[in-house]
Amino acid sequence: MPPPAGRARQLTIVGVGLIGGSLGLALRQARLGYAVVGHDREHSEAGKAKRLGAVDRTEWNLPAAVEAADVVVVATPVQAIEHVFRDLAPYLKPGCVVTDTASTKARVVDWAEEILPASVRFVGGHPMAGKETSGVGAAEAKLFQGATWCLCPGSSADQAAIEEVASIARAAGARPFFVDPAEHDSYVAAVSHLPFLMSVGLVRLASESPIWRDLARVASSGFRDATRLASGDPVMHRDICVTNRESILRWIAAYQAELSELAEAIGGDGADLERAFSEAKAARDDWVEARKRRAETT
Amino acid sequence: MPPPAGRARQLTIVGVGLIGGSLGLALRQARLGYAVVGHDREHSEAGKAKRLGAVDRTEWNLPAAVEAADVVVVATPVQAIEHVFRDLAPYLKPGCVVTDTASTKARVVDWAEEILPASVRFVGGHPMAGKETSGVGAAEAKLFQGATWCLCPGSSADQAAIEEVASIARAAGARPFFVDPAEHDSYVAAVSHLPFLMSVGLVRLASESPIWRDLARVASSGFRDATRLASGDPVMHRDICVTNRESILRWIAAYQAELSELAEAIGGDGADLERAFSEAKAARDDWVEARKRRAETT
Repeated sequence: MPPPAGRARQLTIVGVGLIGGSLGLALRQARLGYAVVGHDREHSEAGKAKRLGAVDRTEWNLPAAVEAADVVVVATPVQAIEHVFRDLAPYLKPGCVVTDTASTKARVVDWAEEILPASVRFVGGHPMAGKETSGVGAAEAKLFQGATWCLCPGSSADQAAIEEVASIARAAGARPFFVDPAEHDSYVAAVSHLPFLMSVGLVRLASESPIWRDLARVASSGFRDATRLASGDPVMHRDICVTNRESILRWIAAYQAELSELAEAIGGDGADLERAFSEAKAARDDWVEARKRRAETT
Repeated sequence: MPPPAGRARQLTIVGVGLIGGSLGLALRQARLGYAVVGHDREHSEAGKAKRLGAVDRTEWNLPAAVEAADVVVVATPVQAIEHVFRDLAPYLKPGCVVTDTASTKARVVDWAEEILPASVRFVGGHPMAGKETSGVGAAEAKLFQGATWCLCPGSSADQAAIEEVASIARAAGARPFFVDPAEHDSYVAAVSHLPFLMSVGLVRLASESPIWRDLARVASSGFRDATRLASGDPVMHRDICVTNRESILRWIAAYQAELSELAEAIGGDGADLERAFSEAKAARDDWVEARKRRAETT
């Protein structure tokens, strides 16, 4: 959406950490014509975002940051979003487009319906990208390149609002993917939240074992990669688990059953195991290839 | 051990894939003075090893490859080792040092005691390094840099043989770690074989789900890393599981209990979860740091 002649549209990012900061960098590089304003509860993080070029300017006061905004992107941990919505609701301009980047969507869409004024248009968002380091210092303009960006329009969202949020996702190099909030939460429970918990489980199992000293010495690149997600932000992941309990617990149970099947095959003569391993390798290799092709054609 | 004046000691690598090929490259670069001979059941793989500079020459015939060898390194999948030992036993020179690079050690040490002639000195080995791509095309001289190289001397090994195998590990950039074969197998079950099975389990869970098409689209770098090990060689991993059943099944059961504990915490108010995630992050970050320091001081 081109800015109206004469003045730039204002886009305010609330929470300029890894995701908010990377979005700011990407949008400023894409030259969509937004004036990008950054706000963060941590003043030092906001200042760093300014120095790194992730925002055009910062506002230390939340009402001042959002009152003139045409678009507000809330990029905080999930559980903070309810409070942020309450804090900013009285100050939003009528017609303002609000989106977020949180890892779960059903609760966020509910909060938007409940808290945001009817004059505001909400489109939930979730870019499928990240890394285990947090904070704006780890932000990069290319973080979303080739990624899927899930979009869950609220009941207040019209076509123009949906298109504006989709164009922001595309400007960051991602592909918009429209999905129902409950389905979104089940999908990410399987491919994102369960892998995080698997990773935490392995670290706990190994590091709380009486032989950790020896295990740590023998552990190599396989252990490093299998545990990478466990180095992620504990607060963000606590929020994810608390706002996506049912889906996560369902997938954990299904995963434990899968491990039991593998354990049974290990008791066999090896033929079933080799078949299971070959099938998994083929499925994973195909997915990696398809993902590479998608990234190249974005 | 310096070569005797006048002729180079011959070191034969049986199985010049990722591990055997990388060892050949590392040893030739280190200029230990060995004449490195390569043998592989797949003639094309042996030829490729020669072209890539991983061996000085190849021998297509196993007896010819080992009969003049001072050191034999068996770098095949675990289950092939029993047959390789039977095939080469009649041709080994008295005093020859035999080692291997297989992922499990108890069975290999048993096979060595049972099959190799008493005049031969066996020191089991396992470099804790690898990647998900197999074959000599993926070999690199730096593969073992900073890695732990487990060593399990057999009853026939004297100090000179142990020192020669340790010096080979050091020349490849690794750190020798002497360990009992049964303990080795339990350690690697926890930090290497369990992570592989976790990875396979996640790929199977996701890819056999009726919603895989959507999951595949939403899956991102977290899924990629959590499933990386599932792209490993199916035959190698089948052999690992079959030769290390008891330890692996014990760790799978402990891991399932760990997941059940996490599931219970997810049902709580979030405080236990955040603590669990913070502890896991700290343990994992410490391990990564210590590993980095070890690699730098190797």
